[in-house]
Amino acid sequence: MSDYEQFFSTNAKNMKKSEIRELLKLTTKPGVISFAGGLPAPDLFPVEELREVIDHVLKSDGPKALQYGPTEGDMNLREELRKFMMKEGIDIPVEQIFVITSSQQGLDLTGKIFTDPGDIIMSGKPTYVGAIQAFHSYGAKMCPVDLDEEGIDTEKLDTEIKRFTDNGQKPKFIYVVPDFQNPSGITLKLERRKDLIAIAEKYDMIIVEDSPYRQLRFEGKSEEPLLSLSRDRVLSLFTFSKILLPGFRLGWMAGPAPLIQKAIVAKQAVDLCAPPFNQAVLAEFMKRGLLEKQIQRIIVAYREKRDYMLEKLDEFMPRIEGLKWTRPAGGLFLWVTLPKHMNTSELFKEAVVKKKVAYVMGCSFDPTGLERNTMRLNFSFADKEQIAEGIKRLGELIKDKI
Amino acid sequence: MSDYEQFFSTNAKNMKKSEIRELLKLTTKPGVISFAGGLPAPDLFPVEELREVIDHVLKSDGPKALQYGPTEGDMNLREELRKFMMKEGIDIPVEQIFVITSSQQGLDLTGKIFTDPGDIIMSGKPTYVGAIQAFHSYGAKMCPVDLDEEGIDTEKLDTEIKRFTDNGQKPKFIYVVPDFQNPSGITLKLERRKDLIAIAEKYDMIIVEDSPYRQLRFEGKSEEPLLSLSRDRVLSLFTFSKILLPGFRLGWMAGPAPLIQKAIVAKQAVDLCAPPFNQAVLAEFMKRGLLEKQIQRIIVAYREKRDYMLEKLDEFMPRIEGLKWTRPAGGLFLWVTLPKHMNTSELFKEAVVKKKVAYVMGCSFDPTGLERNTMRLNFSFADKEQIAEGIKRLGELIKDKI
Repeated sequence: MSDYEQFFSTNAKNMKKSEIRELLKLTTKPGVISFAGGLPAPDLFPVEELREVIDHVLKSDGPKALQYGPTEGDMNLREELRKFMMKEGIDIPVEQIFVITSSQQGLDLTGKIFTDPGDIIMSGKPTYVGAIQAFHSYGAKMCPVDLDEEGIDTEKLDTEIKRFTDNGQKPKFIYVVPDFQNPSGITLKLERRKDLIAIAEKYDMIIVEDSPYRQLRFEGKSEEPLLSLSRDRVLSLFTFSKILLPGFRLGWMAGPAPLIQKAIVAKQAVDLCAPPFNQAVLAEFMKRGLLEKQIQRIIVAYREKRDYMLEKLDEFMPRIEGLKWTRPAGGLFLWVTLPKHMNTSELFKEAVVKKKVAYVMGCSFDPTGLERNTMRLNFSFADKEQIAEGIKRLGELIKDKI
Repeated sequence: MSDYEQFFSTNAKNMKKSEIRELLKLTTKPGVISFAGGLPAPDLFPVEELREVIDHVLKSDGPKALQYGPTEGDMNLREELRKFMMKEGIDIPVEQIFVITSSQQGLDLTGKIFTDPGDIIMSGKPTYVGAIQAFHSYGAKMCPVDLDEEGIDTEKLDTEIKRFTDNGQKPKFIYVVPDFQNPSGITLKLERRKDLIAIAEKYDMIIVEDSPYRQLRFEGKSEEPLLSLSRDRVLSLFTFSKILLPGFRLGWMAGPAPLIQKAIVAKQAVDLCAPPFNQAVLAEFMKRGLLEKQIQRIIVAYREKRDYMLEKLDEFMPRIEGLKWTRPAGGLFLWVTLPKHMNTSELFKEAVVKKKVAYVMGCSFDPTGLERNTMRLNFSFADKEQIAEGIKRLGELIKDKI
């Protein structure tokens, strides 16, 4: 048999391996300091606390936790999530909270319930690579609108949506990562959030709010969640991956009941339910107040790492026109812009092979793939020694290209 | 906001809640004996062994197990699965074994990589309801061919495929559950397996082999897996849900490298990876030889339950023309056919509310939804006392309708 290609669906024929995930393999070579992954710091995982909680769950309710569970999620966990969101200022009934197998699955379900091939989805530029993959896998066309230091440019967004709508091609929804955005680290300011809701109302659209880092704020006050600004038009995705651990693959979705209902029906056919065992463990973990404790622990550690990376960038980067970086108030990432003539995709191999330092090139976060002179740096995974040495190497790489 | 319907994709508009899963809610009312679910017996879950294994994993490799993992799966688990399959007579390299978040996800990925809206998929009739849901969610048309006591009628299958192909509508693939099929309990005989492969070759097609129960054989010799009859044309799905526990949501896919590669790329956008923690635990569980032990334990218990249910059916069912049931050599289910004038969908409410016994009506397993006089009975979940009383009630229900 030679030609398997003939069997694939149109969407599958267009699926590409994620460049990032392929490149991550390169960056695991010995001696390479990687700022490329989006990995949380594994030394912060609360292993011992988890062991105790798991012990308790297995002893008190083992058979139930190991059985199938309802598609909408473990009721204890949903109840804990309701309380957790309440503290964030989102008062939403448990029926509108739905446990998913990672927020990446939330993106997949969002693509599935909303998107026909050729549908237009509005997003920021840059934007999260996993969303690009998920939406493209349903044949969507993503139309990105530039971010500035206050988040997505809502004026441009309005103009773009109007253009499409006048053309009889109303976009399906607006996708945003409002808090410490991946990849840029930028947070959408309140005025812009209000603009965004106004735009959704003006054109009768849905907003998908993807907020994996929201709870990891190092300083200042949180901006109001989009979901609490509009309970009608916002479908929100959250995850345990960054505020606790990714190895359980659990997240949650919250929003208007008819959208949550449709997503639940879609999930039945996708994987029946998120892992009930993992859900039971996290419900107990939250019930004991351990999640809040863990979030505080992470904030302290990541703030220190962010400060240190910013310090080292100031120290090691050449002072040249056009070279700048963001100073995120939370999250896992910052975003470096190089002078226009530099190309981070072209530089990548040299960075990893010669300088032994890795980043993710900006083009990965651009649905059009045209972005050239930007890179994402992760500050959560590396230790301080690696941060100092890695930024020094990166500085040298750039100096060589001036 | 009133009209959320306008936002949904064409496929989402067609998604229906699973009748089974909705009905399962009814069957949890006090006093109802349910043969409806497909649940394994929770009292057999190896809770204590798992606790020890989890302890070991957290202590020896906690941070790694709680981190993100590769999309294709944990290498230790894939290596254990390679050995496990070798014992089944399937010698396949680890690169062609891929860990998925439940075999239901395998069906979703299969739908995703193969199916464009309107594509035809061949299947048995009856067939697994979760496959119907998964394939329908991609807009596929499922064309079922009757099963007899030797499995899918391959002569009819050939005729049907020829008819479609002559019409310029070559079906996308053939979906079969060859071992102790859900819902019928029927196993596809070797000659039929060979016919099936010959048909796939004749028409240049793929076969999707979904085999969640294969290892749960109570007597006799296993039929050769389709995957070992053709390494070119068979993509196989397996799961831990029935041979160990469903609460971890883990399964695996094996088959030709280009198909596995495409499914891995699709999974990146779907949920990045199956839960790495759960994978690390099952790798260690298998390494310790505990899975084989557990399978033996389950076989002994389920055989006894099957025998007992068959005994009670003989005892309590009226001896009337047209009433019969299958005698499966393994798995979790048997299949009852009532006289043609009886309608198990119409009888359901009376069964649950008046007689307090539940089954799944046959129409759920028919992609055309026309099946009327059949029902699926699960014998793995209820205890012996419940089996005796439940079958007695079912006998009374049917006697009332003669």
